Amino acid sequence: MNGLLVFMTDFGLDDGAISAMEGVSYCVSRELNIRHLTHNIPPYNIFDASYRLYQAINYWPEGTVFVCVVDPGVGSKRKSIVAKTLSNQYIVTPDNGTLTHIDKQIGIAEVRQISEKTNRLKNSELSYTFHGRDVYAYTGARLACETISFEQVGDSLPVEDIVCLELFGTRKIENGILGQIDILDVRFGSLWTSIPYEEFKNCGFNIGDDILVEIFHEDKKVYSNRINYGKSFADVGIMEPLIYMNSAYDMAVALNQGSFSQAYNIGTGHGWTITMTR
Amino acid sequence: MNGLLVFMTDFGLDDGAISAMEGVSYCVSRELNIRHLTHNIPPYNIFDASYRLYQAINYWPEGTVFVCVVDPGVGSKRKSIVAKTLSNQYIVTPDNGTLTHIDKQIGIAEVRQISEKTNRLKNSELSYTFHGRDVYAYTGARLACETISFEQVGDSLPVEDIVCLELFGTRKIENGILGQIDILDVRFGSLWTSIPYEEFKNCGFNIGDDILVEIFHEDKKVYSNRINYGKSFADVGIMEPLIYMNSAYDMAVALNQGSFSQAYNIGTGHGWTITMTR
Amino acid sequence: MNGLLVFMTDFGLDDGAISAMEGVSYCVSRELNIRHLTHNIPPYNIFDASYRLYQAINYWPEGTVFVCVVDPGVGSKRKSIVAKTLSNQYIVTPDNGTLTHIDKQIGIAEVRQISEKTNRLKNSELSYTFHGRDVYAYTGARLACETISFEQVGDSLPVEDIVCLELFGTRKIENGILGQIDILDVRFGSLWTSIPYEEFKNCGFNIGDDILVEIFHEDKKVYSNRINYGKSFADVGIMEPLIYMNSAYDMAVALNQGSFSQAYNIGTGHGWTITMTR
Repeated sequence: MNGLLVFMTDFGLDDGAISAMEGVSYCVSRELNIRHLTHNIPPYNIFDASYRLYQAINYWPEGTVFVCVVDPGVGSKRKSIVAKTLSNQYIVTPDNGTLTHIDKQIGIAEVRQISEKTNRLKNSELSYTFHGRDVYAYTGARLACETISFEQVGDSLPVEDIVCLELFGTRKIENGILGQIDILDVRFGSLWTSIPYEEFKNCGFNIGDDILVEIFHEDKKVYSNRINYGKSFADVGIMEPLIYMNSAYDMAVALNQGSFSQAYNIGTGHGWTITMTR
Repeated sequence: MNGLLVFMTDFGLDDGAISAMEGVSYCVSRELNIRHLTHNIPPYNIFDASYRLYQAINYWPEGTVFVCVVDPGVGSKRKSIVAKTLSNQYIVTPDNGTLTHIDKQIGIAEVRQISEKTNRLKNSELSYTFHGRDVYAYTGARLACETISFEQVGDSLPVEDIVCLELFGTRKIENGILGQIDILDVRFGSLWTSIPYEEFKNCGFNIGDDILVEIFHEDKKVYSNRINYGKSFADVGIMEPLIYMNSAYDMAVALNQGSFSQAYNIGTGHGWTITMTR
Repeated sequence: MNGLLVFMTDFGLDDGAISAMEGVSYCVSRELNIRHLTHNIPPYNIFDASYRLYQAINYWPEGTVFVCVVDPGVGSKRKSIVAKTLSNQYIVTPDNGTLTHIDKQIGIAEVRQISEKTNRLKNSELSYTFHGRDVYAYTGARLACETISFEQVGDSLPVEDIVCLELFGTRKIENGILGQIDILDVRFGSLWTSIPYEEFKNCGFNIGDDILVEIFHEDKKVYSNRINYGKSFADVGIMEPLIYMNSAYDMAVALNQGSFSQAYNIGTGHGWTITMTR
């Protein structure tokens, strides 16, 4: 552990919730360095939480502790766990799918179930709706400053038992590839797909190619056009579309200095698919 | 003092104001640990500021210094003060009601008026509209790193002279209790009432009861329905309503994974009341 | 250098981008104190970035390193630079105009072009769209903790060669002064003009004067009214308009506890001008 404690939630930044989580942590140790991945995960959206965690985690030092709370099932029987990744980082989270991308892309070395008998904020036993403060921040803080060891979190669970969401991935199709529109580059409205750069490249596409992009919502085709494949936005004119490899090394579609998502009313997640063909 | 300096304002996060406050503080001492409670208090809303401060402060260590600036009266005769709570924390704020909940729920040990002769950023005398930077952050930083003692803030004031808002509280009514809808759990649209769990319990309500909830805006009834009292959201189906005890140990009403506030167009604050009866 | 590393971007706070920048920096050194000026610069708006940086930078200690990334030209031939100001602070940024206000108001001592051969995150060579993470955060972090010296950033460039936007400034007119509405005090809807307090005062205006304010969008007059010049909002009634000197020591126009911008549908930047006359 290295003293870095990173929070991610869907709680937003408008009230005192995140501050209560910070306060609980600093009561554990004032030496912690608490950082915030994002607190604007769309409410209850576990897929997005899993994606955002994966988008950032690779850039953090070994030993960093992440507290990730998107928890529609708070108060239910869902488990509270701490996962140790193969890259030696820790994620404190409800066991509801937040680890999906980490599990697939990085790998999980070990999982322990948080024992609330020993790892719960004193005098919070009556509180049933804010485990982010009472259990997750408290446990993350104690782990990050080594008040407890990973073993003291609680009993080990089989790694293969953790809850994972089904990922769409990609399908090879004639003359190209099919993927899902996983998520937006929210601020800029670019579409980030589930198609890894390597698989795209293996279709034989090269920088400069005009590629047929078709977007579907369920069975309905909502967009169809040839788009240039460039290195970066500056390769096309302002408001021109572009296929590019994004900063997560997946394929993406953008309007240079515009919002592709807004311009064509494109959503993300289940039911939103995209093909790129010659 | 412990070096922790926590800012709360209604300034938002879109411009350079908060950063100027941080910079002023780090010029005082680079050893400070500056944190942010929230900067999204609705503009000029002193009640919400008081509530959010109270929501978080109990979870912070003794000796923490809070700088709370929701200041519609900047440049008027309103006083600038530092309050020391009975729990040994400090709040630097305009004297306009921000201390209302702290005063009632925690208690204030001593109040001092900030002397702007000694406690104002050098060369800021011409500036009349940003006391958050020129007076409050500067004084909070100097207090938090013990450049000045609490006594050096300025003269002591009678605690009973500080400005407090009137709180609605609760009324016992036939078969139940009446309170105000104080505030929202903004991100999720749940209604947080002024009814403490203890008073609610004393009405004889038990987990599992179906309780008649009626909501009024001024004299007009805007909602009336029986709602189940559960421990947590997971006790009811998705989009079902629920009465529960929130993380501040008051009674609240939610739609599981929906927004009760949006669904029924319910507001908060003065004029928004709620009854829970058998 | 003092270990303070301040980020400003137009990336927003909704995804993992800022966290990846933080992670890269903490991999360089865990001793850094990373702060955030704002990440809500309107997308691609270099003028606003330049303004917000200038609004905050004067309040920070010498030796602070700022990483400012509003970068519509990412992947183009635009240079990546580090500027050292006359006040001994450092700004790591694409050379696209972000330094405009700093250059005019503070002055730039020296500029160096970032050599990506030595100053780029290892194994990020394939990534063309996130220089904020791969080049700017990485270089800012290494500079802030003195892994590299300013000289090791890369070759020196002539200061006069950096890209600056054209600033509107002011024009003396009959009985008063003409300026641009540069930007909003976003949260409160006040208009911040390009008219410095000193130039306004030199027109002979005094506290208490009723001043004729006329606002134009291109050639069309969109507002015309006499407004009182006060020290602070409390000098006028609620929802009354007010001319005042803002916290950047420029002249501004507000509605006390209301939004002037919304009330009269006033925008900012190119084409939005304002006159204040007797």
